[in-house]
Amino acid sequence: MAIAQGQGGSAVAPASAATIGPLDRALRERAARVIPGGLWGHQRAASLPEGYPQFFRGGEGCRVEDVDGRVYVDLMCSWGPIVLGHRHPAVEAAAQAQRALGDCLDGPGEVLVDLAETLVGMVAHADWAMFQTNGTDATTACVMIARAATGRRKVLVARGSYHGSAPWCTPVPAGTTEADRQHLIAFDYNDPDSLAAAVAQAGDDLAAIIVTALRHDLARDQELATPAFAQAARALSAERGAVLIVDDVRAGFRLDLRGSWAPLGIEPDLSAFSKAIANGHALAAVTGRDWLREAATRVFVTGSFWCSAVSMAAALATLRELRRVEAPAVMARAGQRLREGLARQAARAGVGLRQSGPPQMPLLLFEGDVEQKLGALFCQQALARGAYLHPKHNMFLCAAHDDAAIDAVLAATEPAMAAVARALKER
Amino acid sequence: MAIAQGQGGSAVAPASAATIGPLDRALRERAARVIPGGLWGHQRAASLPEGYPQFFRGGEGCRVEDVDGRVYVDLMCSWGPIVLGHRHPAVEAAAQAQRALGDCLDGPGEVLVDLAETLVGMVAHADWAMFQTNGTDATTACVMIARAATGRRKVLVARGSYHGSAPWCTPVPAGTTEADRQHLIAFDYNDPDSLAAAVAQAGDDLAAIIVTALRHDLARDQELATPAFAQAARALSAERGAVLIVDDVRAGFRLDLRGSWAPLGIEPDLSAFSKAIANGHALAAVTGRDWLREAATRVFVTGSFWCSAVSMAAALATLRELRRVEAPAVMARAGQRLREGLARQAARAGVGLRQSGPPQMPLLLFEGDVEQKLGALFCQQALARGAYLHPKHNMFLCAAHDDAAIDAVLAATEPAMAAVARALKER
Repeated sequence: MAIAQGQGGSAVAPASAATIGPLDRALRERAARVIPGGLWGHQRAASLPEGYPQFFRGGEGCRVEDVDGRVYVDLMCSWGPIVLGHRHPAVEAAAQAQRALGDCLDGPGEVLVDLAETLVGMVAHADWAMFQTNGTDATTACVMIARAATGRRKVLVARGSYHGSAPWCTPVPAGTTEADRQHLIAFDYNDPDSLAAAVAQAGDDLAAIIVTALRHDLARDQELATPAFAQAARALSAERGAVLIVDDVRAGFRLDLRGSWAPLGIEPDLSAFSKAIANGHALAAVTGRDWLREAATRVFVTGSFWCSAVSMAAALATLRELRRVEAPAVMARAGQRLREGLARQAARAGVGLRQSGPPQMPLLLFEGDVEQKLGALFCQQALARGAYLHPKHNMFLCAAHDDAAIDAVLAATEPAMAAVARALKER
Repeated sequence: MAIAQGQGGSAVAPASAATIGPLDRALRERAARVIPGGLWGHQRAASLPEGYPQFFRGGEGCRVEDVDGRVYVDLMCSWGPIVLGHRHPAVEAAAQAQRALGDCLDGPGEVLVDLAETLVGMVAHADWAMFQTNGTDATTACVMIARAATGRRKVLVARGSYHGSAPWCTPVPAGTTEADRQHLIAFDYNDPDSLAAAVAQAGDDLAAIIVTALRHDLARDQELATPAFAQAARALSAERGAVLIVDDVRAGFRLDLRGSWAPLGIEPDLSAFSKAIANGHALAAVTGRDWLREAATRVFVTGSFWCSAVSMAAALATLRELRRVEAPAVMARAGQRLREGLARQAARAGVGLRQSGPPQMPLLLFEGDVEQKLGALFCQQALARGAYLHPKHNMFLCAAHDDAAIDAVLAATEPAMAAVARALKER
């Protein structure tokens, strides 16, 4: 991939809105025959505006290249996993060194212990760690450990929060039964009263409260957890002998290397991590406090690849590098530059743009844009000019987003913002 | 890793029973502090006889090396994933070529389509494919697709069968609730009457029958699916408009590349694959028939790493190589050589040894050995002489087990069998 190609976003991009390239189109036709719906899950191009590529050739740093050779500054970062940049040299070197020895063996490698020690040293509340492959594995293991520890069943979950795609948590009911959620009780994020009511409803059967590190529901302004809410979650669970689980799968290692609630001074009992932990290598982790250690040994959760050494070696290198470059601050700075640039463009164009969430995980929504039609237009226009954005899901910065990359995004969004302004006038 | 070291199993092995090496011991001590129980899941050395290493340095071909530099002929093959041999050159070259481009991106690579087409061409019943990371992801997705397709809830599961470690299927109840299994109905494997009774019990709420490709329950003689049982499962599910799911996670691509029930002439509606599919890279797959395609698009199952390209490139190379070398036959031949050698040794020593299952997945149990004490002794003695066996879980051959490797195992098991004979005399 020739990085220079994407620098200004213009060398590779058509002048008008994005269109699907010929190779992407041909692959979609083949995929439609052998894959239900052409693709499943969160990376389906069908849930993105028209013109977005479905298939990718590769990535380097903060840029991705689609199968048709178009290069974009990547503001999705593979939906979170890429935190240092695609194919980060230190991470890939560590992975390669481990791969030269072995990966999936009859037991873990020494790197398992190194990684667990690193997490225990890094994550504020962590007395121990366990590893899995995907975020859903980690959130599900947390719920199981909480139930095993307390001998109780009720788990409190915020309405609209995403905790994975297992039957107990997938946001789509197809294929699930009412029994899968029989012991869940809903509350409203950042609403201590609602949480207290749910705790009361659970009575003496309260096993856990599970909360995402921030409110990052689809197509809804993001909200950081308020101190009052985090304190209530901590106090209520402690009072009832229940487990406070922070689902840090999406935000973990992007906002604060000690865990995303560390700045609030609130320590959960269990945290679930995944996504950014190994810069794109498949890994998840649960960290926990001592009082849950025994319960964690009683729960039987495992997977064929959960002890694979290459992902752990990649994670160790990722966490080391994140610390070395103070990556959360680097990403915050880049995200702030993007936010301020977009705000200026919106003001100049007279467009009502709402930007929410921490700067490392920006979400853009346009005022009154209930079906994200303006968002789609904006993203299509930016895509055509070399910036890969998302119209309703939070985006992700990585430590490879330097000023030049952010400015390339802003060069792409300036005409996109003008297109939104024109569309508003034509309404 | 110096392959020559392990050739005879003697150069690296102490003369007596196995003892834990100093590096393994030191790692266990560190692990005990930061990992509940020192390790979780199926690879815990605590569930193996004393002396088994917990931590591994690497692998090559059919051999693994523990952290203390002891090399073993590997008859667990990482509990199944290794099917061509550790670090197979063609697989690793394909993985490396993809990794040089990118792995976890904003969407899948072209390799996704290649792999889906390969599975549809290879697996007898497959009209389409979807991918996940772990076996549990695949079996859970099958159950969800079946429920979505039928709009019904009941799933029939054989007593004692392992389908993964999610709350609905983990073999240990800790951390689960009765609701997790509320819509499961048990039957006995290979018992058509028991299956028919379970079907009747489900009535018009029958969504699926899920069966492992063979009966491979822990510490129990393995049984191939009988034709009568497989036919009953197929006929009963078809009659009721329910889904027949073959859980081929453990046996898939080891017994028959068309799917493990292909020799029986029985085509399931859905199959779950994982383990051997990518020779140790983290991947799982669901294959299905056309009538379930629409339901598969309605179910929301996904994971951060489910579209990662490196594992798919590895899978493509693995499947190509399995076909090229006719790996199931190669493994069957090696497994047969092992079986016959062990049978001769047992007969000579006057030891009652039961060998069960397909030769590619051997299980060894000693007559009257209810707590597997003889099995433990046998395995410890063999381990000390360079053969890594399991006393109660089925083992796995790979295509790299050549005659010399099997003979090295037999050289290790000969004195182990004598030790069992002595123990029997001392009873």
